[in-house]
Amino acid sequence: MRNINEDTITQAVIASFAKCENSRLRTIMTSLVQHLHAFARDVHLTEEEWFNAINFLTEVGHITDDKRQEFILLSDTLGLSMLVTSQNNRKPSNCTEATVFGPFFVEGAPIYNNGDDISNGATGAPCYVSGQVRGANGDAVPNAWLDVWQSDDEGFYDVQKPINASDNILQARGRLKTDAEGFFNFRSILAEAYPIPHDGPVGRMLAATGRHPWRPAHLHFMIAAPGYETLITHVFRDGDQYLDSDVVFGVRSTLIAEWVRHEPGVAPDGKLRETPWYSLNYDFVLNPAVVSA
Amino acid sequence: MRNINEDTITQAVIASFAKCENSRLRTIMTSLVQHLHAFARDVHLTEEEWFNAINFLTEVGHITDDKRQEFILLSDTLGLSMLVTSQNNRKPSNCTEATVFGPFFVEGAPIYNNGDDISNGATGAPCYVSGQVRGANGDAVPNAWLDVWQSDDEGFYDVQKPINASDNILQARGRLKTDAEGFFNFRSILAEAYPIPHDGPVGRMLAATGRHPWRPAHLHFMIAAPGYETLITHVFRDGDQYLDSDVVFGVRSTLIAEWVRHEPGVAPDGKLRETPWYSLNYDFVLNPAVVSA
Repeated sequence: MRNINEDTITQAVIASFAKCENSRLRTIMTSLVQHLHAFARDVHLTEEEWFNAINFLTEVGHITDDKRQEFILLSDTLGLSMLVTSQNNRKPSNCTEATVFGPFFVEGAPIYNNGDDISNGATGAPCYVSGQVRGANGDAVPNAWLDVWQSDDEGFYDVQKPINASDNILQARGRLKTDAEGFFNFRSILAEAYPIPHDGPVGRMLAATGRHPWRPAHLHFMIAAPGYETLITHVFRDGDQYLDSDVVFGVRSTLIAEWVRHEPGVAPDGKLRETPWYSLNYDFVLNPAVVSA
Repeated sequence: MRNINEDTITQAVIASFAKCENSRLRTIMTSLVQHLHAFARDVHLTEEEWFNAINFLTEVGHITDDKRQEFILLSDTLGLSMLVTSQNNRKPSNCTEATVFGPFFVEGAPIYNNGDDISNGATGAPCYVSGQVRGANGDAVPNAWLDVWQSDDEGFYDVQKPINASDNILQARGRLKTDAEGFFNFRSILAEAYPIPHDGPVGRMLAATGRHPWRPAHLHFMIAAPGYETLITHVFRDGDQYLDSDVVFGVRSTLIAEWVRHEPGVAPDGKLRETPWYSLNYDFVLNPAVVSA
């Protein structure tokens, strides 16, 4: 090992993992070192560029706290999150596709009944969401738990607003169950396109590489039911200008739906709306879980 | 871009850099994404492993401050630092090889004259260091600035000791100049092997992969003179048990030297030493700088 040079160092590092008892970890570290070194060789990374990368990662680490996860943003914006999601969620083509989880899910959101208003004070045009959860064989899935979360009309999630964070107010997110026929419905607000947090190092990376920080309007769903794989996905709003340039590469054409605009009048909850309102109907198809022998 | 799938996402991310005006940055980001995605595919990275990686990097970021640079430690222990150093410091074979800079250099170390004791209170067996700085053509290099830094007999650099950090005491490091014939000499202490800081996430990675955290004993040098490339290197102590398993892959056989042990008696500075002392003689050969046209 004392005669390592530019050409032999990769094998020397890989050899250093020879005593790793966790064979999966050894596989991962070996591949990581091979690709990391191949990258540095391919671009002939300079010492100054390496140092800039160290400083960049340091900034990513320092801006990350319990409210903001800049490493996930970095993974998202480099397409790594979507790749990992895709390769771990291969499904029959009649099942609903998965997409990225994102950084804005919160454990312990309020529990609602079908028909409830989950906006809880978040601002935006009223939007009535309904649909059915089915299995791949067409059977309705009753009592499936749906987690829903979304941004408001200013493009912010509740947890991004200082006043909500301090008072622990959860808005435009909730948990509800499908009924005996697998149906669900709730009132929320119209989802709007929004930029990911871009006042940090990831935002600087996007600007330097000529990219915008926007995500097309979408509604997050996580759907769990016994006997099925948990589905983490979004429904995207048709017509959004960012559908073809989602900064986190999360759009799938099968996940785009029409959010129908309605003129003022009687809404699905029987109330008279004096301003335009929207409705979205979208069904989800779950993949049966593989049963261990 | 709305029909991205597991196979096409890499090209979609690369295409997102199309408007990047800095062509070097575009090259780097393109290669980075290709290798990052290839790694995730090769090992079929799971969502849980991805999340563990996010948490690992978050810890690396949070332990990093102005005194500790865990990202550099990570780069060092994965051999990336040495690879980048090697590919950016190709020299004729008669020139002294470069090695990693490491995290313990300090700007503004005390200036000493030849013959001075640079230990400044650091503990360890006395060690008298001497040598000559020459150019690749054999010419002596007068008035070259030498920066020297090293650990003490407990394996700690001055900046790792809380008492030094608070009082800003710099020990066993200094700057001095070669004389008119290119010679230098100073008294310091015997360098000892030491573990890199391993109470953080990088230490956990080393333990999990069956690696020790030790570096063989060495003395750091940075040598700068007009007309020559600045040389950043170490001299390693022959016989050290970690020469073949340096945790940062920094050893080069040409950089190993004998640190001669002397029984008690008169030392090079004319003083009578009542305990054993050491001497090291090592010459450095600098590569002429490329003159821009």
